[in-house]
Amino acid sequence: MATAGKVIKCKAAVAWEYGKPLVTEEIEVAPPEADEVRIKIVATAVCHTDLYHLFEGTETELFPTILGHESAGIVESVGSSVTEFQPGDKVIPLFINQCRECRFCRSPKTNLCDKGPIGAHDKLAFEKSRITCKGKKVLPFMGIGSFSEYVLMKQIAVAKIDPVAPLDKVCLIGCAISTGFGAAVNTAKVEAGSTCAVFGLGAVGLAAVMGCKFAGAERIIAVDTNPKKEEKAKVFGATDFVNPKDHNKPINQVLAEMTNGGVDYSFECIGNVDVMRSALESCNPGWGVSVIVGWTNRHDFAARPIQLIVGRTWKGSLFGGFKSKDGVPEMVRAYLQKKIKVDEFITHSKTLAQVNEGFELMKSGQSIRTVLNVSSE
Amino acid sequence: MATAGKVIKCKAAVAWEYGKPLVTEEIEVAPPEADEVRIKIVATAVCHTDLYHLFEGTETELFPTILGHESAGIVESVGSSVTEFQPGDKVIPLFINQCRECRFCRSPKTNLCDKGPIGAHDKLAFEKSRITCKGKKVLPFMGIGSFSEYVLMKQIAVAKIDPVAPLDKVCLIGCAISTGFGAAVNTAKVEAGSTCAVFGLGAVGLAAVMGCKFAGAERIIAVDTNPKKEEKAKVFGATDFVNPKDHNKPINQVLAEMTNGGVDYSFECIGNVDVMRSALESCNPGWGVSVIVGWTNRHDFAARPIQLIVGRTWKGSLFGGFKSKDGVPEMVRAYLQKKIKVDEFITHSKTLAQVNEGFELMKSGQSIRTVLNVSSE
Repeated sequence: MATAGKVIKCKAAVAWEYGKPLVTEEIEVAPPEADEVRIKIVATAVCHTDLYHLFEGTETELFPTILGHESAGIVESVGSSVTEFQPGDKVIPLFINQCRECRFCRSPKTNLCDKGPIGAHDKLAFEKSRITCKGKKVLPFMGIGSFSEYVLMKQIAVAKIDPVAPLDKVCLIGCAISTGFGAAVNTAKVEAGSTCAVFGLGAVGLAAVMGCKFAGAERIIAVDTNPKKEEKAKVFGATDFVNPKDHNKPINQVLAEMTNGGVDYSFECIGNVDVMRSALESCNPGWGVSVIVGWTNRHDFAARPIQLIVGRTWKGSLFGGFKSKDGVPEMVRAYLQKKIKVDEFITHSKTLAQVNEGFELMKSGQSIRTVLNVSSE
Repeated sequence: MATAGKVIKCKAAVAWEYGKPLVTEEIEVAPPEADEVRIKIVATAVCHTDLYHLFEGTETELFPTILGHESAGIVESVGSSVTEFQPGDKVIPLFINQCRECRFCRSPKTNLCDKGPIGAHDKLAFEKSRITCKGKKVLPFMGIGSFSEYVLMKQIAVAKIDPVAPLDKVCLIGCAISTGFGAAVNTAKVEAGSTCAVFGLGAVGLAAVMGCKFAGAERIIAVDTNPKKEEKAKVFGATDFVNPKDHNKPINQVLAEMTNGGVDYSFECIGNVDVMRSALESCNPGWGVSVIVGWTNRHDFAARPIQLIVGRTWKGSLFGGFKSKDGVPEMVRAYLQKKIKVDEFITHSKTLAQVNEGFELMKSGQSIRTVLNVSSE
């Protein structure tokens, strides 16, 4: 490739400061090091985690940053020791490594990887960044930073996918769909015939609904304060829709009355610690499993000890429990084989330069997913 | 029996008021109803839950009560529909029912029973009590009230045990030993070769240590602020002892450094919500399971969502997850076959009239278990 071994100058949406809109800038992306892959981003979606980091997060000093982590692209060039990838491969960048060698990677119990922090967005990642804008280092958010025409990734954080996959669709498998679907299938291990409740019907929650359905749940109660979400939830398999605003009693009581004492599995897909508690309390006391999927780092979640002592289990799920390099190509195949839905999550299509509109659509609850078309395949 | 069908007048230690010492009184115990069994208590131990209800609990209006729930005795008489028991049977009263018919009893996932509240100590149980003292109704604590020469139990809350079992020993299987042991074996399902941490080395904590050892744990770290507990912990299988007071850093950091990032399983056996958090945080992020075994209803337990999201699981355990009527006879057999220790928990022996001394020994950390000898076998 003409660009191999050279610094690439390209466009990116840069978040210069916490709380401020993104600005389209020219950035410089270094060539890949020995174990790295440089990827041309074709499509990237706007995820609530991007919005959180920019407007709600606690790491206000980690700027300038390039947000974006739910993406798909094509390998542009590879480092000297990379044999697994070659230019032209279709890939999805990953915010969790899978080195396949460490104690975590060798255990079936976790999708963590000992090789470096999860989706590094910390001071060290900042200092190590080889992306610059106007002479300043820029942090690639969650180790990716896909609101950019090019990204640099360690090869242990890249999944090669089926070349027939449409990148402007399967980019969603890089975060939301895997996160929600896997929370049901891998983390909760929803059993056939069971009753589930999903709190929060953004893309992650809808994917959790789809996961419950895929696992054979008999009843799937979708919970959201936005009545417009009901129709969409049913597309993915919800059998019931409950709007907490329609009830004068706590939602856990409403669900307990609907389900003979509580659901078998519940999923918090918002990142609200009060909802996390409600989701736990909505579970059957004897065996209910509640999974925290939504992200917040601003508050503690809490409950009374009795809520667990009687028999409930509280778990969390990161990227749906999928080992990243193994899980993502599998999910792409499942989509190509029509076993899971992807297209139905996409409500809006924009260009990279319109990313701030994507944030606005998300904030106002109008979009499920806005996909930004960054480059042509 | 000469007493069958008649009210029995006998001795009991009555807690007249919250926070006050117990008083030995004459009480009246009604004959058993159709589905009930009246039991002569031979031995009962002093458990922290008794102390909690009397001195630390929130249900200060549920008095007068007869405390005690960790006991063993001999059937004195049975109700008209009881076929499973007959006078002379050795039994252990249970604070969890097992009706064998309800959805909970039919599920292998829980030891709850739909037939009435768990170890009922509430207003309704108070009103229904057929034990009186000086003409006043007295609540049998946790549905048992074994600080008494006789108790009345539903047959679904009585376990018949091997007649060779020494009642002054196996009474401990009625609560502490099953609770701690089962938390490791049934609730956490400790795997062979794993690393465990047990916080709080009372009888329940020591039984959890024993359970971890029984399950084949390779390393069992016993944690207590009382250095005298080290020796005892090693009797039950602890390989390490850590006193948080010996360290300037948080105990979870100490344990993480000892165990390459955290233990596989941890157990909170105190009933302190701060320790519950420490126990969770001491777990390996990828797969650690923390079990709340200690009881408190005064405060919430809490943590940051990330603590679960990375992969930890928070569970609770009630009576060690044992289905009560099935589990207790099994545990008694395990003791008779020398598969589990029981005698080693007993540090003091007293009479029923000396029950207040038993509380003092527990408060001061001198005793593991004080067994009160109530009647002769």
